[in-house]
Order: sequence, then structure tokens, then C-alpha cells
Amino acid sequence: MTSAGHGPDTAAPDPIQDYLDDLHFRIGRMSGGTVASYIPELAKADPMQCGIAIATVDGKVYAAGDARTPFTIQSVSKPFLYGYALERYGREAVLQRVGVEPTGEAFNSIVLDEVHNRPFNPMVNAGAIAVAETVRGHTLGERIDTLLALFGRFAGRPLAIDEAVFESEKATGHRNRAIAYMMLNSGMIRAAPEDILDVYFRQCAIEVTAVDLAVMGAALANNGVNPLTGERALAAEFIPDVLSVMNSCGMYNYAGQWSYDVGIPAKSGVAGSIMAVIPGQLGIAVFSPPIDGHGNSVRGVAACRDIAATFGLHVFKTQITARTVIRRELRADVTRSKRVRGPAERRVLDAEGRRIAILEVQGPLFFGSTERLLRRVGALAGDADHLILDLRRVPSMDEAASSLLLRLAAGFATPQRSLAFAHLGAEGPLGDLHRGLAEAPGGLSGRVFADRDAALEWFENRLIAAAGLSGEESRFSLASIDLFRGLPAEDIKRLEAMARPFVFETGDTLIRAGDAANVFFVIARGSVSVQVPAPERDGRKTIRIASLGPGLSFGEMAVIDGGRRSAEVVARERVVCYGFSVEQLKEVGEAHPEMIVRIYANMTRDLSERLRRMTAEVEALES
Amino acid sequence: MTSAGHGPDTAAPDPIQDYLDDLHFRIGRMSGGTVASYIPELAKADPMQCGIAIATVDGKVYAAGDARTPFTIQSVSKPFLYGYALERYGREAVLQRVGVEPTGEAFNSIVLDEVHNRPFNPMVNAGAIAVAETVRGHTLGERIDTLLALFGRFAGRPLAIDEAVFESEKATGHRNRAIAYMMLNSGMIRAAPEDILDVYFRQCAIEVTAVDLAVMGAALANNGVNPLTGERALAAEFIPDVLSVMNSCGMYNYAGQWSYDVGIPAKSGVAGSIMAVIPGQLGIAVFSPPIDGHGNSVRGVAACRDIAATFGLHVFKTQITARTVIRRELRADVTRSKRVRGPAERRVLDAEGRRIAILEVQGPLFFGSTERLLRRVGALAGDADHLILDLRRVPSMDEAASSLLLRLAAGFATPQRSLAFAHLGAEGPLGDLHRGLAEAPGGLSGRVFADRDAALEWFENRLIAAAGLSGEESRFSLASIDLFRGLPAEDIKRLEAMARPFVFETGDTLIRAGDAANVFFVIARGSVSVQVPAPERDGRKTIRIASLGPGLSFGEMAVIDGGRRSAEVVARERVVCYGFSVEQLKEVGEAHPEMIVRIYANMTRDLSERLRRMTAEVEALES
Repeated sequence: MTSAGHGPDTAAPDPIQDYLDDLHFRIGRMSGGTVASYIPELAKADPMQCGIAIATVDGKVYAAGDARTPFTIQSVSKPFLYGYALERYGREAVLQRVGVEPTGEAFNSIVLDEVHNRPFNPMVNAGAIAVAETVRGHTLGERIDTLLALFGRFAGRPLAIDEAVFESEKATGHRNRAIAYMMLNSGMIRAAPEDILDVYFRQCAIEVTAVDLAVMGAALANNGVNPLTGERALAAEFIPDVLSVMNSCGMYNYAGQWSYDVGIPAKSGVAGSIMAVIPGQLGIAVFSPPIDGHGNSVRGVAACRDIAATFGLHVFKTQITARTVIRRELRADVTRSKRVRGPAERRVLDAEGRRIAILEVQGPLFFGSTERLLRRVGALAGDADHLILDLRRVPSMDEAASSLLLRLAAGFATPQRSLAFAHLGAEGPLGDLHRGLAEAPGGLSGRVFADRDAALEWFENRLIAAAGLSGEESRFSLASIDLFRGLPAEDIKRLEAMARPFVFETGDTLIRAGDAANVFFVIARGSVSVQVPAPERDGRKTIRIASLGPGLSFGEMAVIDGGRRSAEVVARERVVCYGFSVEQLKEVGEAHPEMIVRIYANMTRDLSERLRRMTAEVEALES
Repeated sequence: MTSAGHGPDTAAPDPIQDYLDDLHFRIGRMSGGTVASYIPELAKADPMQCGIAIATVDGKVYAAGDARTPFTIQSVSKPFLYGYALERYGREAVLQRVGVEPTGEAFNSIVLDEVHNRPFNPMVNAGAIAVAETVRGHTLGERIDTLLALFGRFAGRPLAIDEAVFESEKATGHRNRAIAYMMLNSGMIRAAPEDILDVYFRQCAIEVTAVDLAVMGAALANNGVNPLTGERALAAEFIPDVLSVMNSCGMYNYAGQWSYDVGIPAKSGVAGSIMAVIPGQLGIAVFSPPIDGHGNSVRGVAACRDIAATFGLHVFKTQITARTVIRRELRADVTRSKRVRGPAERRVLDAEGRRIAILEVQGPLFFGSTERLLRRVGALAGDADHLILDLRRVPSMDEAASSLLLRLAAGFATPQRSLAFAHLGAEGPLGDLHRGLAEAPGGLSGRVFADRDAALEWFENRLIAAAGLSGEESRFSLASIDLFRGLPAEDIKRLEAMARPFVFETGDTLIRAGDAANVFFVIARGSVSVQVPAPERDGRKTIRIASLGPGLSFGEMAVIDGGRRSAEVVARERVVCYGFSVEQLKEVGEAHPEMIVRIYANMTRDLSERLRRMTAEVEALES
């Protein structure tokens, strides 16, 4: 199970697998308990079998021992069918049929909640039989199909019924028959007991492995989505209900102590399995046939206790993660859009850029993390009045978060302040917020940008415009080009004589990577993007590394190196520019070296300034 | 409560405060319930009073209505004293005195767990009276001091006892007297009942406000640390115990339904308060005197239900946050240390740099997040054999995480692979891991670096050395200096004539920011740091923006601009370098412009290459 790497010596270390192997070795030797015998077929199980599996919410499975040995699911099926019933009939209807109160009684207790005329909870047999009546299907065959489809979605693979165990259970399950008739007698079920038991006994006889149960538990931990297939097995809204009853009733009359000591919602089955769920993290399953007086696997209880204690997994052992909701906070005096700005614009952004703040938000947005985020936004209000919430790293957002952010956006709809959302897709997990913004009065949707760079450039342009400048004005005079500043009039004349005008339309490629570099350009009107191919696995095809407007030059490294172009340059709009032949420039330069020295000095100063800004930006990005 | 900003129009939006005000308005109008009358003094309470407060684990408090009106804490004191007893006597001893089993009985039930000879749980009066016996002190005065100190730590301010309520409760608390004598009779308590009740009645009569209770709840949510004062009120290991019993028993005989529906550990008091805890996020408190038949505040229950439903706060409504444990993954082909490298070294790092991976880890490390991290480390093993775990953003690490990382480090102790920890302090929350590494066989402690840059430079040096190069060799010949490459022999001779040798010792300042820039330097031996002052609120005094070794030059912008130095340059070790007067160089340049053009071309090429690399680095840092 370890990766091959460069040979055994260099196999990746896997401390968790090591721990599991060690745990399996330790508990495999434990004695105590007896194999369940009330179903004759179960009594045949080998008491030495012992398998442990852990599955994470993103589908990694660790396994040790007999983790792939099949056994029947028995009572571990109960929480899944309870979830099914809730999803099918809703919370209220199901609560009328089955309670949620723990009892001190054994799993096969015949005691019922006479006050509410229902079984106490869905984890005891009586409750599970009531739940089994809700399985959809006109015929037994259809009901079996429903069962297998449900459990298959949770396990992430097709499951089957162990017919021998089913027959054995059907032939000997008289206590369950008695329970069913008691319930029929008091109107807690309506269908014929034998019909319901035909479903119930089959549900208990579904064949699974410890790995299956771990994955099924991980699906519960993962808010109902199977971590292997990505398929939803149960609506997220019913997960808390299922975990609540597992927590209070899942270990029968050992549940109180279990919940206090081990503190993990769990369910045990009489074939010797226990499935435990760490919400948001893991499913854990142990299989070992000998069970104790409560009906719980002896080695299973020991293994769960060990895992919980070793890894600190009590439900109320809390990790405070809301703190990381703000990944990074940046200001536009240091962090700029990829629009390269001329000196006057740079001065505006140097002075005013702090008014634009970018908050990189990360992780799921729920109340705790959103509250933190809102608080930071509030604290920024006096200082930064243009705010970009970069949601690229937000994988999900619950209703509470979405409604709080809508309230926030409404609070920002003033002339003095603006709020932009970047990476907020109309589709996908953040779609609710996108729709909410689009439907809000006052056209808040204008504040949604495809990416952060676009939002940042837009806010920069606002600051530049507010300062009475415009980055967009044409620069047809070569003397106004940054690269040529300080040149005497006769040098400018020489350059004018050499300049060849070019016009490009939106989307035209001006420079192609790999081409010979023998011309450099200065922009008189319009703007261009400099872009390079994106690395593999990046969603994008190309990455824009800069955009340039009037007065700026590109391709000037050609003057030094000749060689090949290293990036592609594309017109963002209609572009008018001048091209200079490097060959010709060199000839002129030999006659007038002081002109070349001046151009070099301008170029060096500009590069040096950009390098200095970028060093500061790297520093900001790293901190 | 809102920040002043630029006037009322620009006050920071506060959606959570808005919600709370709205909720207060809605529930303030509710009728139903009656003010508790069994303690005469409590019967005087104004039934219209209603206050709500929410406190976060980092100390932000939201409040609405009568949130600062004092009332007596009553039964809400029980979980705190239970925690106190656990901390004082340990789990086992306390479990022998008080159970953890929910009962269907009312708060003042006289029914006891006869099988184990103890009250059922510490949330009913019997259990709380047993717990009150554990309060430290030889005299009543000392016991009262213990009580007030405990509650003051939780509230973050000194609290006092409402003597009138205490006297009233003492005068009329015959039922509690009966319970105490029953327990004395069966040996569940040993001290004189009146002595214990003197503590118990006072504990119930401590005066708090809704804000206090919210903060006290937030301290429980914050693993026992008061969020206002930063003081620990209860050892973290007992928090799960306290929350478990609150969850199963805190709302008396309404607890089962509460835990299923609302799903938040909570405790109510007969003066009309409810305190609820969202582990890792919040404390919530509501105060409104009218109580229902279970003894729970009517408006309190309604407010908690509304808050829980609106903000999705059910304990088993899980946020899956382990995913964000890796903040960013970087490779040294793109992300480099601040050591500026010459062309040959650059080629080595361009080709081999991917073998060094930096994982920026963030958020608390616990099993779920550490498992994710280990998995990524495992996946990298075939590809990157030098690994830096940058722990700067890890605020805490539990035992499970620390022991898994130690196992990981042991697995990396092979000649083929290396693992370094950056920002792992000997003191503070990560100290356990630091000590574990120091004590591990094989000198793993050598792999701990003060910061990431140091770790990265060390790994880079290893790659460079493995390629048969050394960044450290001296370059006394000017022809070998990068800035002068390609110059004809006669130009080198001219430069040699101008060069003045300098020697600096470790820590010497070579260039001071603000000084006139009239010399530039090339390094023959040793290395220097280029540094700028750190921004305010940064822990550091200066930030190193580069370090340079033999063959590299610094201060060369002086050649172009003259002007002032923009950064400080300090010797990292003994440095031998050559200085060139800019004035003199300019004179020579006028006679030999092609020499200056060549130097400029070298400088431009170098700047341009550094800019390109830095653009790629920014791209990597942003992604």
C-alpha cells in the first residue's frame, strides 16, 4: 500500500498506516466476548477475524487486517435507513413514527414509548422496523432494489445480500416478529409485519467489508456525499439528525458512557462491526466477531477507543479553524494589477493604493468564519474604502454565510464605498450569493468580477480617474514615450525617421513566443496583454503577466539579446504602435553611442524600479 | 457600537448586530411562561426583561436589549463547577461521585442512581450539590473566594454574590436540603449538608449579565481560555466532558429533543437565562425571566432556536476545514531563497529546483488536518526529495499532530531525502514537536530552521554542491564578474586601474540607506545582505530582500541615478570587494562609450532576467 518511489528505502513514510498496522497487531490478540449465536448463520464466524479501516472525507482509505473480509451489516444499517426515511418523508412525519430519545434498554428491547405511541428511537430494533416500513416499492423486489441502491450509494460500489444469513435470520427472528406484531397492535406500523420484516431482515443481511463501512461513515462525515464517487447519498440537511441519534443511541445501553468517554457518533452491529463517524474528517470501521453483553464488538470498542484517544477525536474536542478564513490581506499600494502604469499613474497608486484592500478568503464559509470576515471588513472601513473579496479558495458557503454577505453588500451600496467579489461564479457552490447579488436592488451585480486582477485594475482605474488622470490617453509623440525621455531633440528626430507605424485589432497577436526578436514596439494608443502559457493542470490556457498602455514599450529586450521572443503579446483593443528595427537602431547607435546609453539608462531605471516594486510585492505575498 | 468612519453614512455595515437587534425586537414581544417563584427574591424579576449576547472565541461581543442587566446565574453555574471538580480531582474520582447519564427527571429531582450510589449527572441539583462539596477551602470564606475566582476567570471580570437572592434561597431551599440529606444518608456526600449548601446557594446567587454568560460560554468554546483576558479558566482536556454533559443533560428533561433539534450544548438557569456553546466558535446567552414547565426561559429557548437555525449552528452540521491545511505549495525552480545566484548556479536551480518543495501549512494541526498534510508529503515523495514544512501559520498543534510529525521526520531520516521545519519555535504552542525532534535519535534537530528563507538557502546550497559547484568560491579576477562579462581585455585593464579593494567584517554596514550613492561594489569573497526596514507591526526590524556572494555586484543603480541609497547592505561574513567611483567610471565612459553600453547591456539583461523570475514567483505566490 506504499508508493514504489525509488525503491524500498525511499518509500514515502506513512505514519497513519504504521499506526493502524500496530493497532491491528495489538487488538488482534485481545480475548473476551463471544460470537453472536442467536442467528445460527452468524455463529459460524471466525472469532479471530479482525479488520480496521479509516476513510477520509476526501476518499483516502487506510486499512489493516481483515478489512476486506465480507460480513453482514446488521444494525449498522439503521442510521442509513433512518436518513433515507427523513429524506423521503421529512422530519416531522418521521418523528411521529419514531422518537429520538435514548433508552437504557438493550438493542432488541420490546419496550415502546407508550406516551407518544412510537418506538423510542430508530437505533433499537423496534424503531428500525418502523423505519423499514418507509422503504419505497410496490413489490418486495422494488423495495430490495431501493435498499441496495441506497446502500450502494453510501458504499460507492454495488452491494448484495447474503442470502444464507437472511434465510437464517428470517427463520429464527421470532423476537423481531413479536416486536413487529406489538407495533401493529398499537398502530405504530400499518403494513403486514412479515412484509416489513422481509425488508428489515434483508437490510441487516447486506454484505459489506470494514472498508465499505469506513467509506459509508466517511460519506456521513462528508455531509452526505460519498468521498469515492462524489455522488450524494443523503441530503446534507439530514446528516445532523442521523449523527445525533447515533451519538445518543447508537451503542445501545452503552451509549451514555460511550458518548462521554469516546465522544464519537457510532453504530454497532451484531456481526461484530462498529462504524464511527468524525464529522468533517473520517469514517472509521472495525470488524471482529466477538461481542460483549451490550452487543458491541469487543475489539471494535477497544480499537475505537484507541483511535479516538490517540488522535484526539472527541466530538467536543474542538479545533478552532475560523481564524484562517482570511488567507491574506493585501493593499494596492504594494499589490497591483498586471496593468503596467506610467510614472504619473504610479504616483497616484503609490499614494492612494492603500484605499484598495484585497481580502483573500479561504475555506468553507459558515457562521463562524463569515463573522470573522465581516469583522475584518468592518475594521477596514475607516481605512480602505474599496474592498475586493477574493473567493477563489472558498469551496462552499452555507445559507447563513450567503445571507450575511448579501447584507454586507447592501451596507456597501453607498457612493463613498465599494465592494467587489472576485471569483464568484454564477454556477457551483457559491451560486446562491451570485444570484442574490444579481437580484438585489441597486445593481450590486456590477461588482462581481471574473478574477481578482480584473477587480483590481477596475478599482485602480477609479483612483487614477479620481486624481484627474487617465491611463488611456494617446501618446503619439515619441518624446512622451518613457523609454526615450531625456533624449535631445535631434535623437528624437532620428528615432522618428526610423519608426514604422502598426495598427492591430482586438485579439491580434503582435508578438509570438519563439519568433525571432528583431523589432521592439512603443504603444501610442490602446493596450496589449503580455502572456505566457499556463503550467499544466492550471485551469487557464495562458497567464497574463502584464498589460501595457500608451507611452509604454515592449519587446525591448530584443535590443540587447536579439534571440527569440519569450512571451506572447496580444492586443486587448485596437492598438496603434511604432516599431523599431533593432538592426537599424544598432547602426544609429554606433554613430551616436550617447543616445543608446540614455535609452539603456531609462530601461535600466525602469526595470530596476519594477524589480523593486515586485520585491515588495513578493514580500507582501509571502507574509 | 459602530465605528465612526467618515460619518453616519459610512459606518461599517454590521450584519450580525443588525440580525441580533431584529431578533431582540421579535422575541421581546413573545408571551408565555412565568417568572420562577419558588425563590421569593426571584419572583420580583421584571418579566419583560430580555437581553441577548453573543461572544466569539476571539473576544468580539455582540449584544442586544438588556444584555448588561444583572441576574443570578443559578443552574448555569453547574457546568463550570463540574469542570472545576474534574480539574481538581480528575475524571475517575469525579465519576465515582457523579454519573454522566441523562435522566428524564426534572432539575430538582430527588431520584438518585442507586446502582452506582451517585447522582445521575452534574446538571441536576443532586449532582451539582455533590460537586459543590469539592470546592477548595478550609473555611467558608476560602470556599467563597475559590468560587468567585473561578467564575471571575470565566467571565473575565470580578463577580459578586447577590446576597438578597442567596439569603432568600437559603431560607426557602428545603427541597435541596432534602436532597442533600438523602445523599448524606447514602454516603454520596460526606460533609455537613448545610456547609455544602452554603457553597451551593452562593454559587447559584452569583450575579452575572447576558454578556458575562456569553463570554463564559465563549471560554468553553475556546477550549477553556477566556477570550477577553487570554487567561485559562479550565484545562482544555476537560472541556469535552463539560460540553458532553451539557449536551445530554443541560436542558433537563427537554435535553433529548433540544440536542436533536437545536443541537447545541446548553445550560439553563431558573432566573431565566440560557447559555449555549458552539465549540470553536461562540458563546451565546439569553436572559429573560419567564420560564416554561421544564424550567427553561421561554424567550431564551426561542432565541437559541432562531440563532441556531439562522446561522446553521447544529453541532453535527459540520464544516470541512481540514482541506485548507496546505496554504500553498511551492517549488524551488520558481521560488528561491533571497540568495542572488550567478548564472551557473541559476542553471542548476532551474534544472533541479523542483526537487525542493515548500509546503506552507496553516491552521491548527490536529488529526484531520495532519493526515491531509502527511498524505501530500507522501504524494510528493517520488518527485521532491527535499521538503520544507513552513509552520509559520500554525497557531496550535495537538499531541496527535505532534506525534504524527515526529513519526514523519523519522521516516525522512534517509540519505536520499531530507525534511526541514521552518518557523518551529522551541517555546510556544509548537514546542512539543521541537523538543521531540531535539530528543530524537540521529540529530533530527539539525533540520529545524528559524525561517523559510534559511531552510531554502540551505537546500539550494546542497543542490548546487551536489552539481559540483560552489557558490562560495572567491572571484578576484574582474573578468569573472558578471557585470563585466564580454568586455575586451583593455576594458578590464581600465577597470582594474580604477578598482579600490575594501574589506568588511561580519555585521559591518557597507551601504547605509539615505547615503549619497557614488560608489558601486563587486564582491570577490564572502557575502552580503541587502535589507530594508520592516513595516510597522512586523515582528522584525529589517527585512532581507537579497543576499549576494562572489561575482555579484551591488549599488550599481548609482551609475545611473546618483541620488541616494535605497537599502542597507550588511556583511554576513568577512567580505572582500572592489569599489568603483561612479564619477571616475563616467569619465572613462565618455572616452569609451562602447564599454558603458556593454556594462549597461549586462545590467539590463540581469535585471530583466531577475524581473522575469520574480514575475513567475509572484504568479506562483498568487496561485
